[in-house]
Amino acid sequence: MALQETAGEGAGPFPFDAATAEPAQLRRLFRSGAWRGTTANMANGYTQGNLAILPQEHALDFARYCQRNPAPCPLIGMSDTGDPRIPDLGADLDIRTDLPSYNIYRDGRIEGSATDILEFWRDDSVAFVLGCSLSFEEALMQAGVPLRHIETGRTTPMYRTSIETVPAGPFGGGMVVSMRPMPARDAIRASAVTARFPHTHGMPVHLGDPAAIGIADIDSPDWGESVPIHAGEIPVFWACGVTPQNAIRQAGIPLVLTHTPGSMLISDIPSSVC
Amino acid sequence: MALQETAGEGAGPFPFDAATAEPAQLRRLFRSGAWRGTTANMANGYTQGNLAILPQEHALDFARYCQRNPAPCPLIGMSDTGDPRIPDLGADLDIRTDLPSYNIYRDGRIEGSATDILEFWRDDSVAFVLGCSLSFEEALMQAGVPLRHIETGRTTPMYRTSIETVPAGPFGGGMVVSMRPMPARDAIRASAVTARFPHTHGMPVHLGDPAAIGIADIDSPDWGESVPIHAGEIPVFWACGVTPQNAIRQAGIPLVLTHTPGSMLISDIPSSVC
Repeated sequence: MALQETAGEGAGPFPFDAATAEPAQLRRLFRSGAWRGTTANMANGYTQGNLAILPQEHALDFARYCQRNPAPCPLIGMSDTGDPRIPDLGADLDIRTDLPSYNIYRDGRIEGSATDILEFWRDDSVAFVLGCSLSFEEALMQAGVPLRHIETGRTTPMYRTSIETVPAGPFGGGMVVSMRPMPARDAIRASAVTARFPHTHGMPVHLGDPAAIGIADIDSPDWGESVPIHAGEIPVFWACGVTPQNAIRQAGIPLVLTHTPGSMLISDIPSSVC
Repeated sequence: MALQETAGEGAGPFPFDAATAEPAQLRRLFRSGAWRGTTANMANGYTQGNLAILPQEHALDFARYCQRNPAPCPLIGMSDTGDPRIPDLGADLDIRTDLPSYNIYRDGRIEGSATDILEFWRDDSVAFVLGCSLSFEEALMQAGVPLRHIETGRTTPMYRTSIETVPAGPFGGGMVVSMRPMPARDAIRASAVTARFPHTHGMPVHLGDPAAIGIADIDSPDWGESVPIHAGEIPVFWACGVTPQNAIRQAGIPLVLTHTPGSMLISDIPSSVC
């Protein structure tokens, strides 16, 4: 079981260029357990997703939570109960093995991580896949909008906010947002570009004054790393996939399986699909 | 219990102009049972929706069916189990009374219709609301794309196709489409305009040759009325809300409650929301 933490060019177990590889090629490699690091900069042009596996008892409420909060919870795939396949996202996909790394939560607390979850998958398991921001960041960069956290080699800063999500059953709580600083002209273009990607969080939920959405100190993110905001730049905030992760954790469900942060599901869906 | 069939200007029980009325004003009137006809040309600028109420036992599969088939099944609201409110669609909304007319289906067969469903709503009922094409037709007309069925005072022609939906549990079957004939330049604009309305069926699923999607005779629609296609025009096809209605009927569920065709839920959501 390898424990690499970055996917440098030609690094580790990759007998091909991961950035231009086909999703199925990467999923097969992850299935072998040979890589448990990040999927950033892999299979460029394809949608990556967050994973949450819940018992059927809570699945209808979580489907409602996603329907009511599409910006932080853009649902792109849902398995049948007890069936680990999601053919819409990949013909050969087995959700139990095809991600680099999984986290196991019991009663809202992390128990550990693993390269597969074959032993944890149950007859009443339902897998949910939610689009993630890696895809819209690709689109922003193609549109010529530079991203500070990438330029500086950091993780996007993420913040708790005072924006409440619409609850469903045991799921609820505040929206978590990611922040990217940019000049006004880029904020305008970034809004227009990301509006075209509803399945990867869509357009910003806020721009400008952090206090307006309950962020007290922009230099102290709750997750990720702080990035500098230059003179003439404004912070632009997007709904973030940490929102449903928090909602699930706070619901205190006996067994929840997720991706390990950064180690996403790579789907066959092109990022440009509208 | 009134039985008007059309909503002419100033007709019947309307003490206001229905076209420019607020959604809540119309819902209150429907709640009183005073109108059981169409909601066409009412509350212009607001999203109207199809209704399907299923027992919780089948709700998760139907949520999956909608997620897997967003073009024919654009889910815009979902009630809690046994709770007739859907605040996202209207603060004061009671889904049991606020539509002009409901159909009651038992084991896939229609049993009758009623102006409210208070006696049929159960503790395990889950209401689903799906966006309908009335909203995107408004946008098309505003963009200067004329609609033949409106010009000729007919119901949109609808057809069974050879396009299979992605099944979920007992739900599946062929996609039903609506057809609007127009010249190529309008078909192009109509594609661009409706792509901005994913919650009301989105962009066309096909244009041109009807046989390519299994339609043998364009002059014999399976629902609605035939409309003339003039020289130089091509038929343009959109996914249609009859698709989930058929899927539900074929699933043979003991009790299903729906809107009566044409008598939709009028929501507080502006049609222009993207």
